[in-house]
Amino acid sequence: MPLAVCLISGGMDSCVTAAIARDQGLELAFLHINYGQRTESRELAAFNHIADHYGVEKRLVVDISHLRKIGGSALTDPTIPVPEGVLDRAGIPISYVPFRNANLLAIATSWAEVLHARFICIGAVEEDGSGYPDCRGSFFQAFNAVIREGTKPETSIEILTPLLSMTKKLIVTCGVKLQAPLHLSWSCYQREDVACGACDSCLLRLRGFREAGVPDPIPYA
Amino acid sequence: MPLAVCLISGGMDSCVTAAIARDQGLELAFLHINYGQRTESRELAAFNHIADHYGVEKRLVVDISHLRKIGGSALTDPTIPVPEGVLDRAGIPISYVPFRNANLLAIATSWAEVLHARFICIGAVEEDGSGYPDCRGSFFQAFNAVIREGTKPETSIEILTPLLSMTKKLIVTCGVKLQAPLHLSWSCYQREDVACGACDSCLLRLRGFREAGVPDPIPYA
Repeated sequence: MPLAVCLISGGMDSCVTAAIARDQGLELAFLHINYGQRTESRELAAFNHIADHYGVEKRLVVDISHLRKIGGSALTDPTIPVPEGVLDRAGIPISYVPFRNANLLAIATSWAEVLHARFICIGAVEEDGSGYPDCRGSFFQAFNAVIREGTKPETSIEILTPLLSMTKKLIVTCGVKLQAPLHLSWSCYQREDVACGACDSCLLRLRGFREAGVPDPIPYA
Repeated sequence: MPLAVCLISGGMDSCVTAAIARDQGLELAFLHINYGQRTESRELAAFNHIADHYGVEKRLVVDISHLRKIGGSALTDPTIPVPEGVLDRAGIPISYVPFRNANLLAIATSWAEVLHARFICIGAVEEDGSGYPDCRGSFFQAFNAVIREGTKPETSIEILTPLLSMTKKLIVTCGVKLQAPLHLSWSCYQREDVACGACDSCLLRLRGFREAGVPDPIPYA
């Protein structure tokens, strides 16, 4: 079975990405990256619960708290409030962590090269209204070129983004169909006990479940 | 003055890169990345000495010890010996740290985007015989494309690699001409008190000084 390094934040999208990778017959290695976000402890717990669910043995947890030192985002700078209650704003949202996905993919590629993995799976979603530049298909294509140029000749690693053009509704539907453990996932940007139901991430998730006609199994405030 | 984030390991190449950036009239921000290499303390001291020399105020030191967790290189895995005494081997050397430069450039880009910097300067050398895939011009071109795709529309950051096609001889000559503080730099992969004079990095440096007809100002064992 070809090996896939899966970037698992612990959120719904990464949970469904793992379900898709497993459904495609890939062996899974799980990578979790703590970049100083507010809800890190809760996300790490979700990561381990999902890894346990799929019996994943190869796990790597990496701390890149330099993104907090660098700041520039509501997710990593405590002085910038997390936006609430308004989806589909124009422009790049303040929750954009500068060039975050390139940092995640660089780490994933280093690990994948050592493990001789064939794929990197990331649950990025282009059209969910968040507007992050490092979530676009053209970004991942460009990063695939960087991997080809910057790794050993015998290394062959390709980034898979199965959710890229999915709506949140379709992600929920797909997750339910593949029996993804959505009850173990965590998406809230703001709270760790129960989901706030008000931050962008909660609003997107709740809209997805509502449109899919499925109850969200996690507790909300 | 446009701002340039300079990746400064503390070695000769990064020292000369800083001298070139300053000579071109750029304002400098210095970024040092500890990736778990054996001689980190000595390299960090060199970083700060070179930063003091140029009066650089914007400094960021980042620890990415996950490259040590990931391993796969003589520079980050203590169980793999550092090669000695043979330059110009065939193939990718065991001191290659998988996809290291992509990790460094991702961090540099995140910081550069927050600082509104215009350039990232890195002292990579393509033709020094080391054979690292992530030191090739094609890799840096591909990474420039990733930066364009993965950052905000108003962000404009370009990677500069002024040493890329230089020989070590030319780097020494250029450094001397621009009064780069070569006496403050540190290149040895193996020792921290005096340079070992035997590892690949020392051999390349010594050959450069010899061919340039200039004495190397740092002490050797």
